[in-house]
Amino acid sequence: MWNMHQHGGDIYRNKAISDFSVNINLSGTPESVMEAACRGVRSSFRYPDTRCQDLRKAISESAGIPAEEIICGNGAADLIYSLVLAARPEKALVPAPSFFEYGQALRAMGCTVVCHYMKEENGFALGEDFLQAITPDIGIVFLCNPNNPTGTLIDKGLMERIIKRCEEHHVLLAVDECFMDFAEDAVEYSVMDIYGRTETLFVLKAFTKLYAMPGLRLGYGFCRDMQLLEKMKEVSQPWSVSIPAQEAGIAALKETEYVKRSLEILKKEKAFLLEGLDRLGLKVYGSAANYLFFRAGEGLFEKCLEKGFLIRDCGNYEGLSEGYYRIAVKTHEENELFLKALGEVV
Amino acid sequence: MWNMHQHGGDIYRNKAISDFSVNINLSGTPESVMEAACRGVRSSFRYPDTRCQDLRKAISESAGIPAEEIICGNGAADLIYSLVLAARPEKALVPAPSFFEYGQALRAMGCTVVCHYMKEENGFALGEDFLQAITPDIGIVFLCNPNNPTGTLIDKGLMERIIKRCEEHHVLLAVDECFMDFAEDAVEYSVMDIYGRTETLFVLKAFTKLYAMPGLRLGYGFCRDMQLLEKMKEVSQPWSVSIPAQEAGIAALKETEYVKRSLEILKKEKAFLLEGLDRLGLKVYGSAANYLFFRAGEGLFEKCLEKGFLIRDCGNYEGLSEGYYRIAVKTHEENELFLKALGEVV
Repeated sequence: MWNMHQHGGDIYRNKAISDFSVNINLSGTPESVMEAACRGVRSSFRYPDTRCQDLRKAISESAGIPAEEIICGNGAADLIYSLVLAARPEKALVPAPSFFEYGQALRAMGCTVVCHYMKEENGFALGEDFLQAITPDIGIVFLCNPNNPTGTLIDKGLMERIIKRCEEHHVLLAVDECFMDFAEDAVEYSVMDIYGRTETLFVLKAFTKLYAMPGLRLGYGFCRDMQLLEKMKEVSQPWSVSIPAQEAGIAALKETEYVKRSLEILKKEKAFLLEGLDRLGLKVYGSAANYLFFRAGEGLFEKCLEKGFLIRDCGNYEGLSEGYYRIAVKTHEENELFLKALGEVV
Repeated sequence: MWNMHQHGGDIYRNKAISDFSVNINLSGTPESVMEAACRGVRSSFRYPDTRCQDLRKAISESAGIPAEEIICGNGAADLIYSLVLAARPEKALVPAPSFFEYGQALRAMGCTVVCHYMKEENGFALGEDFLQAITPDIGIVFLCNPNNPTGTLIDKGLMERIIKRCEEHHVLLAVDECFMDFAEDAVEYSVMDIYGRTETLFVLKAFTKLYAMPGLRLGYGFCRDMQLLEKMKEVSQPWSVSIPAQEAGIAALKETEYVKRSLEILKKEKAFLLEGLDRLGLKVYGSAANYLFFRAGEGLFEKCLEKGFLIRDCGNYEGLSEGYYRIAVKTHEENELFLKALGEVV
């Protein structure tokens, strides 16, 4: 089972020089977030607030969503598990390739997972044929937008039709927007503008990626179905979000300048990496988030590791075969060194 | 549902002067543990080690148990939920009164909970009649030793017979020893000496209480049934234990001097509180852990709160009625002030 959880970036057993396998903000954790987490450590002789009251208030103000519709978890992954456990679907629809944990959580709870395969010839984009796959026997649909690992966005018109169809068939739709903050057209592609009009939508978000704090574990979700949220709380322990994580989250939401600045750097560095991959003749599919998904020869993972770079070999994703890789956009120096090494091995 | 999770010490909404409702080590979090957690915060731009390799190695060396038999969680409560989810019992046997989360987790997963009521006339001690309650249709038994909230220990001979009976009937036995480190005769009462001889035993432990770090969330368990451990990992997210928690745990296990010293202080302060309660004519049942369980008139919770003390009103425990209370053993100054206040209200 441990192997199933190796999402690539196993730096604890792969001592690489440079880790391109993990998709977190290249600007690193904001200092104020680390300071807040450390203040949280110093008050950890207390139990965490089970209701995450101050954190949910801060998210509410930042996202413009009522606090009672927000649920916090020990990372977004924690919420995927409690969502599945609360909804108890018998059958689920998940595009492939997509984030590993949806299928993992669903199968662990005994749910049948129907994979909808996205095709290479369509650039791994979700197509209109997905609508027909949403049948009344489906209990839950998971969509990752932008998608991990492909970095593709879902067409907004299609998303609207998916939401409508899910409503018609009473299918719960979980939209994972953990990487949406990195997308340049986030406002356009996000479901946030539709959120207030539907009760079958659960939106998943994380602090992990944008604020580069995966080690602290903090994710959240929101949904207008209060019964579902109550059920999610029921199937989880009450103290799932640590004090350092709650404090870090509150501090992170004040870092609007950091977000703005880091997105500017990301844009520049992404263009630099894209140009480099293009020069090497590698086909890049999606690049909407802070990572690039591309095709290259087999064995690139091992070749990069030899050069001291850990990349994500996507060959073990459902719906993919050997030869697909994902790399994070990192600092200019690292990107430069990586492109140089890549040029030597492809 | 939030109310179901109010285990008494809701300091986030009850701004009391002195919190006697939470049972953590009165000596506070060791400085080295907080420093390690803060170092962990500073490396939280990484994902946590999904295998908790270094932490499990440290626990293994400290507890004398093979590392592969150890599983870590986001607090002991996290492991209660994943244990129930992995074992999927149809029927469970739980003594009452006992820790709230066993029943909560079991019922949330659709399990029927059979309560075995411990009687006031027996000082709320678990009796031999518990053996007959372990029938082949029981999937799991939860025992808390010392018991929370009663502070009573389970007779070792009875525990051995319970383990034997569980083995005979293939019943999984979860023994929660989260408070065992506070017991003076821990070596004698713990199931650690029997652990190596049975595969139907899951032992639950936490860093929370002994090292006063509930806000960081760190618990662990061990079991010789590898299939059960694999199943527990399968039904949980891979990154459940944060980096600060893993680092704090490793540092905590080096604090042998702190543990020794704090247990000495506990012994002295417990005797002081016991004498005080006795002087006030209050009946104390169990005091094996770092808290005292006693009987007093109704409305003591409110009267104490007026005086600025938050105590645990145990009236909402299954198997208890109004008039039972639990208090933590705290620092001498706090205990003195509390006894003074208590003398004025009872």
